[in-house]
Amino acid sequence: MDVLQQFANFAPKKKGDPAVLLLSGGLDSATLLALMKALGYTPYALSVRYGQRHSSELDAAVNIAKIFGAHRHEIIDLDLRRFGGSALTDSLIDVPTNGQANPHPELEGEIPVTYVPARNTVLLSCALSWMEALGGKDIFFGANAVDYSGYPDCRPAYVKAFEAMANLATRIGVEEHSIRVHAPIIDLHKSEIIQLGVALGVDYAKTVSCYQANAAGQACGVCESCRLRKLGFSEAGMIDPTIYQDNSGA
Amino acid sequence: MDVLQQFANFAPKKKGDPAVLLLSGGLDSATLLALMKALGYTPYALSVRYGQRHSSELDAAVNIAKIFGAHRHEIIDLDLRRFGGSALTDSLIDVPTNGQANPHPELEGEIPVTYVPARNTVLLSCALSWMEALGGKDIFFGANAVDYSGYPDCRPAYVKAFEAMANLATRIGVEEHSIRVHAPIIDLHKSEIIQLGVALGVDYAKTVSCYQANAAGQACGVCESCRLRKLGFSEAGMIDPTIYQDNSGA
Repeated sequence: MDVLQQFANFAPKKKGDPAVLLLSGGLDSATLLALMKALGYTPYALSVRYGQRHSSELDAAVNIAKIFGAHRHEIIDLDLRRFGGSALTDSLIDVPTNGQANPHPELEGEIPVTYVPARNTVLLSCALSWMEALGGKDIFFGANAVDYSGYPDCRPAYVKAFEAMANLATRIGVEEHSIRVHAPIIDLHKSEIIQLGVALGVDYAKTVSCYQANAAGQACGVCESCRLRKLGFSEAGMIDPTIYQDNSGA
Repeated sequence: MDVLQQFANFAPKKKGDPAVLLLSGGLDSATLLALMKALGYTPYALSVRYGQRHSSELDAAVNIAKIFGAHRHEIIDLDLRRFGGSALTDSLIDVPTNGQANPHPELEGEIPVTYVPARNTVLLSCALSWMEALGGKDIFFGANAVDYSGYPDCRPAYVKAFEAMANLATRIGVEEHSIRVHAPIIDLHKSEIIQLGVALGVDYAKTVSCYQANAAGQACGVCESCRLRKLGFSEAGMIDPTIYQDNSGA
């Protein structure tokens, strides 16, 4: 498939190699699952119930793992709410919405209140544990540093530093220095991710990106994540299949 | 206190600074908690119930956190047994004991079967999340690379790599490059750790190191961890206060 040529660097060393994917249920990681399959990996999908408000994302993850044929899907519990400090896990902090000033400016600075402290490091560490137990060497991570929210743990330098650490942390890493943390969409615009996914057959109606989706998985249409997603479909010139809540004004 | 002079590099920037400690309930992390208090930190102790067989370690952690005045102690659940691959979490793999050949040589290589895949990376990541939520900059980690079991994630190069990653992963790290992952006992012999702890007033009878302690916290006396601990007391010229099981042959 032509679309795969630009992802040759992310191909498995050997067809069928196991690789662990952090699967959130959102648009980016669903696209990655389709990409991993197309590249020839045996994908192991990992979702973490870390106390996020938007747990309908996890329902979406279950569906996506089935639809796209993850070899196995694990959902593990790790309650990051115990530590507090984010609008995504702390019910005392409001999720900021379109046109609404951040209700907690003291928490903002350049990084938004929806940032969960060290979340991606925790998630990647769990993926690393599973990868090592499987005897694998590859992790897929749907970080994006273009149309993103300014989280520090979504940038290429961070991913490289995690990979370097992983190669010192693990049996295989120490022996072979062969662990790779792949972030194939880190430099893509949301519209390019959507175009890639559509070429690979992803049905984005099955994904949930919204920070405060309702129990049915319907999106609010106004949070940062919804806004980035909408803009992506618009810029890709594609119809947005997202199901919005009636009262979203979307 | 004279004994603190050699740990001047690990002192807080400001007296009372919060710092997160990974507290297992074993000898090493108990010593660190006493050291943190003596250096002037406000210690936050974090234990993780990751599916270890030796859960009496966690009972010991609760006692130690109280006795040594941790400002707060959190025990979080993260079931690494779901991933398998270690004698410490996988009930199908036996813990090797003194004089007994490893019953699963195919899992051994140079790293023992008691290694839990990427465990320290997972634990340190959780500590990092809490540290960031607290607005802190310091993590204490009881790794030891001298009298240890050959785990890759106990070596100084690994700790440095984790620290470098943490400074790219987090708000404070990105702004100040000020996160420190302290491993003050990494170069000490077990006997030196014990001498340090005794100087700081640690009662080692309250700690549990055994990989397969019973529900009362009594040690088997024959696993790798018990052997290292015994040797430590012997080399320190101190009485071993560990309570061994009647049938341990100890």
